[in-house]
Formats: sequence, structure tokens, C-alpha cells
Amino acid sequence: MVKKIFAFSIRKDEEPYVKEWAKDHPEVEVEYTDELLTPETAAKAKGADGVVVYQQLDYTPETLQALADEGITKMSLRNVGVDNIDMAKAKELGFEITNVPVYSPNAIAEHAAIQTARILRQTKVLDEKIANGDLRWAPTIGREVRDQTVGVIGTGHIGRVYMQIMEGFGAKVIAYDPFENPELKKQGYYVDSLDDLYAQADVVSLHVPATKENFHMIDKDAIAKMKDNVVIVNCSRGALVDTDAVIEGLDSGKIFGFIMDTYEDEVGIFNEDWRDKEFPDKRLKDLIDRSNVLVTPHTAFYTTHAVRNMVLNAFDNNLKLINGEEADTPVKVG
Amino acid sequence: MVKKIFAFSIRKDEEPYVKEWAKDHPEVEVEYTDELLTPETAAKAKGADGVVVYQQLDYTPETLQALADEGITKMSLRNVGVDNIDMAKAKELGFEITNVPVYSPNAIAEHAAIQTARILRQTKVLDEKIANGDLRWAPTIGREVRDQTVGVIGTGHIGRVYMQIMEGFGAKVIAYDPFENPELKKQGYYVDSLDDLYAQADVVSLHVPATKENFHMIDKDAIAKMKDNVVIVNCSRGALVDTDAVIEGLDSGKIFGFIMDTYEDEVGIFNEDWRDKEFPDKRLKDLIDRSNVLVTPHTAFYTTHAVRNMVLNAFDNNLKLINGEEADTPVKVG
Ligand SMILES: NC(=O)c1ccc[n+]([C@@H]2O[C@H](COP(=O)([O-])OP(=O)(O)OC[C@H]3O[C@@H](n4cnc5c(N)ncnc54)[C@H](O)[C@@H]3O)[C@@H](O)[C@H]2O)c1
Ligand SMILES: NC(=O)c1ccc[n+]([C@@H]2O[C@H](COP(=O)([O-])OP(=O)(O)OC[C@H]3O[C@@H](n4cnc5c(N)ncnc54)[C@H](O)[C@@H]3O)[C@@H](O)[C@H]2O)c1
Repeated sequence: MVKKIFAFSIRKDEEPYVKEWAKDHPEVEVEYTDELLTPETAAKAKGADGVVVYQQLDYTPETLQALADEGITKMSLRNVGVDNIDMAKAKELGFEITNVPVYSPNAIAEHAAIQTARILRQTKVLDEKIANGDLRWAPTIGREVRDQTVGVIGTGHIGRVYMQIMEGFGAKVIAYDPFENPELKKQGYYVDSLDDLYAQADVVSLHVPATKENFHMIDKDAIAKMKDNVVIVNCSRGALVDTDAVIEGLDSGKIFGFIMDTYEDEVGIFNEDWRDKEFPDKRLKDLIDRSNVLVTPHTAFYTTHAVRNMVLNAFDNNLKLINGEEADTPVKVG
Repeated sequence: MVKKIFAFSIRKDEEPYVKEWAKDHPEVEVEYTDELLTPETAAKAKGADGVVVYQQLDYTPETLQALADEGITKMSLRNVGVDNIDMAKAKELGFEITNVPVYSPNAIAEHAAIQTARILRQTKVLDEKIANGDLRWAPTIGREVRDQTVGVIGTGHIGRVYMQIMEGFGAKVIAYDPFENPELKKQGYYVDSLDDLYAQADVVSLHVPATKENFHMIDKDAIAKMKDNVVIVNCSRGALVDTDAVIEGLDSGKIFGFIMDTYEDEVGIFNEDWRDKEFPDKRLKDLIDRSNVLVTPHTAFYTTHAVRNMVLNAFDNNLKLINGEEADTPVKVG
């Protein structure tokens, strides 16, 4: 019997990859919609053996029940996060779930690197001058990446790629991670402590998870230990940075520039359109407007490479579930 | 007797490096002004053994005569170009002149690399959305640098550094140069012809001089040979690119993005403030306003590293002239 997979909330930029996967799997019937998965839309998947999903909207008990009513309990996420799934209900209904934990470290590392170089080069100031018809170059002078000591905190998937890019520019790279990578250790990248890193680095870039221990690791004390004119890069998680402490450092001139792809209060604000509404966060608006701050709304991941991997891996996972095989990246249900 | 060097048109950002050089040469008296060198200001250099200069303004016969009247015929430029010096008069007066032909290839290569990555990432679109309060990421999706084949035309000082940076990102790099660098050749970077490069490259970056043969090398024919969605990068010389042909390619959608640090009609327009005047070039204004074009007014060179080298090398050269030694980079006078 022909297998069938139904996908919800497929965006325009995901469509080519859904079609690519379908073409490579002629034995599977693939259907999709741009609508989110809700108790009402679940019936669209009727007759499918599994669903592929991705949404911020909660997967409520009602939603899961509606899928189960169609006989569907194999659900593959195109993203990482599973916080919005009612796991108790999922367990009760016998759901099998997969996610895509790693889709493109380079997407995030490249973004962090580009923004780092831009801050050093003062592109925001220069671009604004040019847009306004002021084509004088002085005094908007750049600092070259190769002249910087770049301190990388966290040498996991993303941090390692960021290190390679910075080295391509010719920067001196140092790193800190409590779990040292043997290869990097041999090559002499590691300093002994965060304090050592802060003392030496012209750029401090975070590539660590938001564990309890790492909450506000960049605070007033940490910033005080850094060099004058430091650049701070956070493309990891908002909770890692005490935003008020950074603003203080920007105001005093201690911090040369700040890159913020993730914000501690981003939930409900990022990925929304505020143009015709009152902007919901004054502090964020102030940061967006500063010429030495580059804010992006958690878009570091958003590349064609990443989106393709998210789609293909989710469908691969779902097909394995359907075929009774072990999925590549199953999620613990319950 | 104490030697004395006088420097003209020292900008604020040059001052620290003038002071650095003076400190390292206590045996030399160093004085400077922010004024340009003219027949009127030449007398400021009275008593100096040589002058250090940098200006777009012509070094006219009158200006050179005014210097010679003070007994000064040793002149060291902080920049490359000598087109604005009246060489016949300089020869007649027995001038010895030096310039600084290479001050920081990385300054230009880094700029070209950053702008390349930005175009691929659509940062101009995204930044404008964010500034206006639209924090939705779709559909502003990025292309990763690592997924591109980058074609480098000209593997001299600057092209080679650009290649290294692109490789740090993980891009596939290919190159063309009629004078192949043996090291790069061994590593297999070269394709056999520009046509081969155009056929393969997602990014085409120019790092060649503006010789007669290279005039408008990027024209309608060349663009027709390139891949769809190509990115074209010109941080070398305006004359290399037929601007109208590029605009046609942008309009048709053939060209994904265009980076322009140099413009064929830039003289008299770049490095000026047009905010309270009528903008002098409609075509340029149109390019500045496009979301997939990044214009900068010949600022690729403008880094602290480059400026420091320009200042220090010019003073070094001038001291050698004064001491009757051979300068590092003398200019042919006459
Ligand atoms: N902005 C985005 O779009 C985006 C997308 C994906 C991931 N991320 C974030 O990027 C970060 C890094 O992701 P990854 O895939 O490289 O993770 P990873 O698990 O591969 O690596 C994280 C590394 O951080 C180290 N670490 C933990 N605490 C540390 C500390 N206090 N000091 C130094 N090192 C510490 C760990 O030992 C590990 O080596 C995560 O926070 C992740 O959530 C952001
Ligand atoms: N934007 C700026 O601020 C800025 C600053 C400095 C220099 N530049 C420009 O950058 C360019 C490169 O400078 P550089 O120092 O690397 O020069 P370079 O002389 O070191 O290298 C130029 C290379 O181009 C090659 N070449 C010449 N014609 C070619 C062709 N038709 N096809 C392929 N290769 C060709 C030469 O063989 C040489 O290897 C020059 O045009 C220079 O004027 C721009």
C-alpha cells in the first residue's frame, strides 16, 4: 500500500524542498498545506500515515486528539524545540515524535561572523550616511578583523565553524569550553578560564546553551573584566546576557558594539509585525536604533541550506517512523 | 642638526599614527596641520627638510614652486596615486617623490568579503524591516557563503586575501589570472579562461587593475555568460564594469546582487557631502536605493590598519629621502 505523509504550515521558501523530497520518494504520497495544525485543520491529514509539522502554536491535547482520531500518531518536527507539545497527552495517545536538532551550524556561525565584521567596520553608520547622500568616508573608519583577538565561548557545532571563519579573516582565535575538544586542544586554542578569555579578547562571541548555570553569564562583572572597546556577540540564547548590563557598557563607551540575534524577552515579540502597532518593548527599540548595535530577530538560522535540511530530515524521520524503523533523531515522549 | 618633517592635511584619524612615528623617532622634529598643501600654505613647512602629503587637490606648478622656495623638494605621499602632481614642474625643480603603493590588502579584501556575505544574506532588506518594526523573518532567507562557488578574477595582493576569507567560510574558490601564481596553481585554483569562471561561479569578484584591456570587462556579453542569480563584486576600479549592463542584469533578475565600492563616474562625487545639494548622478542614486545593491564610496581601503601603514610608510620614506638613502617606494618623477 502506498504510504502517505501530510505536512502542515509549509512556507513558500520550504516548498521547493518538499517537492525535492517527494520527487526522490516516488513510493510516498506527499501532500501539504500552509495552514497551522489545529483541532480544526487536523482532518486535512486524513488518510496519511504521518505528519510533518513546525509551529510556535501549541500542540494542545485537543490537537493531538484530533490527529489520533484520524489514526495518525507519527509526528515529525522540522525544528528543534518541543516545549509546545503536550507530552502527557502525546504519551497517552501513543505518539512517536522526531525533531531536527542540528540543521546547519554554518547558518548561525556565518551570521555571527558577518555581524562581527560589520560592527568592526561601522557599516551601520556608513550605510546610513550613504543612504542620506553623505559620501564622505572620514571619520567612519573600520577595524580589520585580522587585527582582533576573537574569544569564542563554547566550541560545539556552531562555535567551531565561527572559529574557522574568523581564522580565514586572519584573526587570532582563542576559546573556552569546560569540555575541551581534543583536536582544538592540541592546536592550542584553549585558555584556562573565562577570565583569561575576557582579559585577551577584542571580540567575545557566545556559542553555549542556555542552562541554569549560564543564565546572565555576561553580566556587569563579566563586562568589567573585558578589554575596552570590546565587541560582544550573542547569536545563541537571550538568557545568556544581562541586557541592562550591556546597555550600561554601551553607554559608558566600554563596549564598542553589540550583536544580538537572541533577546531575553524575545518570546511574543520576534517574528511579529509591529509596524501598525505600538512597539511592545522600549529597551529593544532603543537597541535596534543604536548605530553600534545590530539586532536581528532570531534569524541567524534562516538560510536555504538550513531550511532544506529541516524539511528533508523531517520527512526522512517521518518515513522511518512509518516504516517501523528507528528514526535518526527521536524525541523522548512523556 | 635636527631633521624636520612637516605633514599636510592630517585628519583626526591619522593623528595617533603621526604621534606614534614621532615618538619612535625622537631625532626628528615632526609638525603637522590639517590644511591642504597650496601655494599659500606651503610656507607652513618653513625650515622642514621634507613634507608628507595626501590630497585629491592638484599639486600645481605654483604649489611645487612655493615648496621649492622654502628649499623643500622631498615629498612623500601617504597614498598611491600621483596623477595630480605636475611632474614636468617637479622634475624641473629637482623633486624627489615617494608614495605608498600597498598599505593593507586585507582592508579591501575584508570589505569585499563582508559585502559579498551581506548580499547573499539579504541584510539590507532584513535591516530595513527591523528598523521599521517588522520582525518577521520570512521570506527574507539567506544563502550561505559555504554553498557558493566564488570566482576570483585577479590573484594579486588583494584577490589572494579575499580567496582565503571565502575559504574560511567554506566556499569553493576558483580563480583566473593570466599571470598564474605558482603556489595557487599547484593547489588547483585556476580555471583556464574567464568563460570557464563565468560558467561556474555564483559570485564573481574583481581584483584587477583598470588597464585599457580591462575597460568594461564586465559588460553585457560577460554577464550573459554568467550563471543565473550571480553576485558581482567590484571593489577594484569603476572602469572595469559597464554599469548600464549591470543595471540591465539587475532589472531582468539575472543578477542576484551587486557590490560597488568603485564607480566609473565617481570622481567629484565620492567623498563629498550631497545632503543639502541636488544629488549629482541619478544612476548612482538609483543603485544606492536598490535593496540588492551595496554601494560604498571607495571606502574599502579605510581601516585603522591601512591608515597607520599609510602614515608610517610615508614618514619612513621621507626620512630616507632626507638622509640621502634609497626610499622603499620611490615614484618616477617626470
Ligand atoms: N540564533 C539562532 O538562530 C540559533 C540557532 C541554533 C542554535 N542556536 C544556539 O547556539 C548555541 C550553540 O549551539 P551548538 O549547536 O553549537 O551547541 P553545542 O551543544 O554543539 O555546543 C555548545 C558548547 O558549549 C559548551 N558550554 C556550555 N556551557 C559553557 C560555558 N559556561 N562556557 C563555555 N562553554 C560552555 C558545551 O560544553 C558545548 O561544547 C546554543 O545556545 C543554541 O541554542 C542559535
Ligand atoms: N576599493 C579600494 O579602496 C581599493 C584600494 C586599493 C586598491 N584597489 C584596487 O584593487 C585592485 C587589485 O589590487 P591589487 O593590489 O591586488 O593588485 P595586484 O597588482 O597585486 O594584482 C592584480 C592582479 O590582476 C591580474 N590581472 C590583470 N588583468 C587581469 C584580467 N583581465 N583577468 C584576470 N587577472 C588580471 C594581474 O596579473 C595581477 O595578478 C586594483 O584595481 C586596485 O586599484 C581598490
